[in-house]
Amino acid sequence: MAENILSIDTVALDEEKQALKIIDQTKLPGTVEILYLTKQEDIFQAIYLLKVRGAPAIGVAAAIGVYLAALEIDESSYDGFYGRFKKAKDYLASSRPTAVNLFWALDRMEKVVLDHKEESPAKLKKFLHDEAVKIRDEDIQVCKSIGEYGLELIKDGDGILTHCNAGQLATVRYGTALAPVHLGRERGMNFKVFCDETRPLLQGARLSAFEMVSAGVDTTIICDNMASMVMKNGWVKACFVGCDRVAANGDAANKIGTSGVAILAKHYGIPFYVCAPTSTIDMSIKEGKDIVIEERKAEEVTEMWYSERMAPMGVKVFNPAFDVTDHGLITAIVTEFGIAKPSYSESLKAIFEKKKTI
Amino acid sequence: MAENILSIDTVALDEEKQALKIIDQTKLPGTVEILYLTKQEDIFQAIYLLKVRGAPAIGVAAAIGVYLAALEIDESSYDGFYGRFKKAKDYLASSRPTAVNLFWALDRMEKVVLDHKEESPAKLKKFLHDEAVKIRDEDIQVCKSIGEYGLELIKDGDGILTHCNAGQLATVRYGTALAPVHLGRERGMNFKVFCDETRPLLQGARLSAFEMVSAGVDTTIICDNMASMVMKNGWVKACFVGCDRVAANGDAANKIGTSGVAILAKHYGIPFYVCAPTSTIDMSIKEGKDIVIEERKAEEVTEMWYSERMAPMGVKVFNPAFDVTDHGLITAIVTEFGIAKPSYSESLKAIFEKKKTI
Repeated sequence: MAENILSIDTVALDEEKQALKIIDQTKLPGTVEILYLTKQEDIFQAIYLLKVRGAPAIGVAAAIGVYLAALEIDESSYDGFYGRFKKAKDYLASSRPTAVNLFWALDRMEKVVLDHKEESPAKLKKFLHDEAVKIRDEDIQVCKSIGEYGLELIKDGDGILTHCNAGQLATVRYGTALAPVHLGRERGMNFKVFCDETRPLLQGARLSAFEMVSAGVDTTIICDNMASMVMKNGWVKACFVGCDRVAANGDAANKIGTSGVAILAKHYGIPFYVCAPTSTIDMSIKEGKDIVIEERKAEEVTEMWYSERMAPMGVKVFNPAFDVTDHGLITAIVTEFGIAKPSYSESLKAIFEKKKTI
Repeated sequence: MAENILSIDTVALDEEKQALKIIDQTKLPGTVEILYLTKQEDIFQAIYLLKVRGAPAIGVAAAIGVYLAALEIDESSYDGFYGRFKKAKDYLASSRPTAVNLFWALDRMEKVVLDHKEESPAKLKKFLHDEAVKIRDEDIQVCKSIGEYGLELIKDGDGILTHCNAGQLATVRYGTALAPVHLGRERGMNFKVFCDETRPLLQGARLSAFEMVSAGVDTTIICDNMASMVMKNGWVKACFVGCDRVAANGDAANKIGTSGVAILAKHYGIPFYVCAPTSTIDMSIKEGKDIVIEERKAEEVTEMWYSERMAPMGVKVFNPAFDVTDHGLITAIVTEFGIAKPSYSESLKAIFEKKKTI
């Protein structure tokens, strides 16, 4: 049984150390190592190297990160302060290209500065602190709410298949795709969770399985290519995945392989749910093909943890980090403001209307 | 560029050493190590540990293996000889449960003994030698013929996706699924081959990519979960896979993940071809659900080459070695006697009728 990490927030602001506190996810599941990061380069690298990953967690980490950057700014004028703040913001924004929460959170932080041109840098730092904390607190509430709505879609004992990690390790607490499982567990329910290992970086085997086992969930790891057989065997009642960016028409970018799971689910008649905080929904993007997909190093595929080479020299590698799942393959999109169903062009708009009124 | 291994047969009988000569496929692509096996336990282990793998190659290895076992039998009576031969045969037959060629080849060898009850053990050994050599020679011809028929289905320059390794390393020469590529290459054509890495044992990344690069083919490795995106991008004109056993209705057992590839191919409107020597087609099995599926050790999934553990303790693992692709997902089955199309109940029967007349 792995150490129960449920009591630790995945991303936090350590007020005493004035540091971004994260669990180094590249060390899981073998070692639970807590990092306290203060330097911008370290925070950038932590995001780039996936020490902190998952769209919502990246957003919170970036918000805290840019607040810490602001603390370092030694300027007395607004323009001087804003210039350096903007530079820090742009730097962190370049750490990963696909997750919209990164930009969303940094934009929210920038708005705080832009909305208070009359204030002193000292005051701005205070406002930035409060906004970062607010983003973090909202993330917890958002995930809990997604968990509530998600629980409406399953019943106690169901088999659930998930891809990559959209669990508490991808957020501050609860997760998105795994929020219904965590919340259900708090209420005495249990589920049989199948974790796609999720090559190349094995977030499913390393992270989802880790947090599920830690939470006492009946957890089975499968290689990605076993999902078809597990579904055919009738073991899966629903698929739950997270997402890095949802377009206005419901097309959803998520970890590479998600679109394949959705196609299998459709083939076997299994509902396929995308859990998406509204911060992940990008209404400015019309459809999935407009989403920039990050390509990563070949060595992630050809070498096992950069040690033993598993592929012949001279071979090419295609290593996209994400793919886009067509909205037609998605049974519903679960947000913190309710469950959106097709047609998404309308239902997502309605979700944002509801958001405005709350 | 990897060493070109095309000049070496994957499985051979070394007449001088009286040994089964194989390339140790667990060492590829890093090292090309040739093994000379004489002891039954070593031959059993070579099959069980996938040093030699691929349904046709296993069949040839078992035929040579049981011939080598016969050589060791020191009995003067037919009954004494047959009793020990049968024991050796049953032992090798238990090395892997799914590949029908194993049983098919061993049954052919046994038939030689059963058909010559009047002969001396010395003569029987000679007949067994000749039968093993014949099985090997037939395998080469069968693969070449599958290559010819397969080439009718593609054109020069096409993108082809393959899963696992059904190449020359899975047979004596040419391969089954990759026979059209090898044969086309001999004739100056080239193809863009996408190799699913094929977790957990990475036969695609290690073996297919190795033999494709060795043959000068434009080769790209992808993780299994990237196949959907590669297909969506329009890069794949056809999928070619091998098989371990085909039922009379066309359901095909092959490496785990094959059924998923077939479902994706159907979704994207890409033809999906199963290359099957008739030795792999088991007309005694009505449908795929009657095929025994081998389950293998959890450590193949949870540990990288049995070194670093990638999964939390306490987690369950489902690790089937094969899955069954429903005949409805298969565009055609390519055999050495021609191309079978739906409905397979009729077309496979016709293939066997044709086989009888040749």
